[in-house]
Amino acid sequence: MKLINFINRSSQQQGVGLVVGERILDLASALPSLPRNMRGLLEQLEQWRPQLEALAAGDHQEHLISYDQIRLLPVVDNPEKVICIGRNYADHAKESGGEVLEYPEIFLRTAGSLIAHGEDIVRPACSDKLDYEVEVAIIIGKKIRHATPDNALDAIAGYCIFNDASIRDYQMKTPQWCIGKNFDSTGALGPYLVTADELPRGLKGARLQTRLNGELVQDSNIDHLCFDMERLVIILSECMTLKPGDVIATGTPAGVGFSFRPPKWMKHGDVVSLQVEGLGTLENGVVDEAR
Amino acid sequence: MKLINFINRSSQQQGVGLVVGERILDLASALPSLPRNMRGLLEQLEQWRPQLEALAAGDHQEHLISYDQIRLLPVVDNPEKVICIGRNYADHAKESGGEVLEYPEIFLRTAGSLIAHGEDIVRPACSDKLDYEVEVAIIIGKKIRHATPDNALDAIAGYCIFNDASIRDYQMKTPQWCIGKNFDSTGALGPYLVTADELPRGLKGARLQTRLNGELVQDSNIDHLCFDMERLVIILSECMTLKPGDVIATGTPAGVGFSFRPPKWMKHGDVVSLQVEGLGTLENGVVDEAR
Repeated sequence: MKLINFINRSSQQQGVGLVVGERILDLASALPSLPRNMRGLLEQLEQWRPQLEALAAGDHQEHLISYDQIRLLPVVDNPEKVICIGRNYADHAKESGGEVLEYPEIFLRTAGSLIAHGEDIVRPACSDKLDYEVEVAIIIGKKIRHATPDNALDAIAGYCIFNDASIRDYQMKTPQWCIGKNFDSTGALGPYLVTADELPRGLKGARLQTRLNGELVQDSNIDHLCFDMERLVIILSECMTLKPGDVIATGTPAGVGFSFRPPKWMKHGDVVSLQVEGLGTLENGVVDEAR
Repeated sequence: MKLINFINRSSQQQGVGLVVGERILDLASALPSLPRNMRGLLEQLEQWRPQLEALAAGDHQEHLISYDQIRLLPVVDNPEKVICIGRNYADHAKESGGEVLEYPEIFLRTAGSLIAHGEDIVRPACSDKLDYEVEVAIIIGKKIRHATPDNALDAIAGYCIFNDASIRDYQMKTPQWCIGKNFDSTGALGPYLVTADELPRGLKGARLQTRLNGELVQDSNIDHLCFDMERLVIILSECMTLKPGDVIATGTPAGVGFSFRPPKWMKHGDVVSLQVEGLGTLENGVVDEAR
């Protein structure tokens, strides 16, 4: 299943939907008692899964709406946490000047920094060092602490694409990268959540690419992750309880803007397009902050 | 006003209350249409302030309940973000082996890591390097971006105490401190929110202290902050929108456990008590993680 999280333009109500070809099956219409936001749905996913799968397989013209009728939200708009992993591809670790690590570099993003597929990434007034990062985002579907190799992947509801857009000069102001990763309207999460049952286990073999204004700038494969999906769930859940709706952004491969000479910073009018095999395309424009 | 956020033990409903001496004025009872959680209340604080102040000044026996009737929650239990500042007192920066910074070290905590006054801090099974940190927490009361010296302090609803309890070996595994600051049940936020109007502007002059099992281990003054309340709101809001309920933990002074020889790590059975002038006492026990 491919799930989206949206605002219905006419009712202004939030809802979740199933992607059915070029249209959307409005779950608020088909299943009125289903939670109307992705985090709420994920908290009850196992209980609703049979009905969702039946809907996805059936013909339900009366509940279909078009993309024109909605405004997409980030795949999860109010996660308790967005956990990001740094330097998790050996080639990017090298271009960032560091060694491959024995323990991942972990930082957090705020839910407030997230935007949807199609929304503009905002280049802030204070910096012109806006960079892209294609990543696979894990979306957690089950509460879990102290995951093991036996149950780690089962805690994953599915995956989507993440653009961990970064303000590099702020990221490097101190050893803590956090502030450069948390500007308003920089973290694009979309276009939809693909449930794990429709994908290779742990997303093995998936190619990921970034195109900036059509030019291919990142091109790698999830198999080059230093810490894969299973390891990340185990490592993180040693420390904290992972909960439905939590996002784990698994890191970016080589080819980010700052690695080019001269650097390829994103600027007003650019279009950045991220593709991950099986997860579709996440595309965002870039605009200067309005002051 | 002193505000608390709690679960009513008999109804199991969340509520907010005004501290009145040794008792609590139950705002769900006195003002039934008031939001029943602190973040919701802070989002509407200006609109409700006159009624709250009238209640605080009056005699309302019928709405008073005792602490026995409630279970305290973190002052804000579901903030969009908990922003923490590292090495923000020159003496602690020195004991941590670094220089005083030109820009603050910023990291985030998850709402899931927070606990209330009186709840136990959990020492995880994987580490015995559990440390305390007394801090003043700013609680944001108004949405603000690009704050200036003219309006920065006005965005602050009030203050409470924060114990930024840290798992030091995990904090130091990589340059990103985040994971050592985000273990379950480590961030104590309490005991109550004191509104800014009852305190010196920017909390100037407030003494802050930590006692571990009665022994004074941290003792400093807010005036030694490198980046004070106003500067922090300006610096952070350059990058992101601050929103009602957001927490800014302003950093800890010298005297944390790891600075002693041998280090004073917290262990099962300990009691850690944090005092800040005007903000009361935040006290928590310590227990080993149950596995």
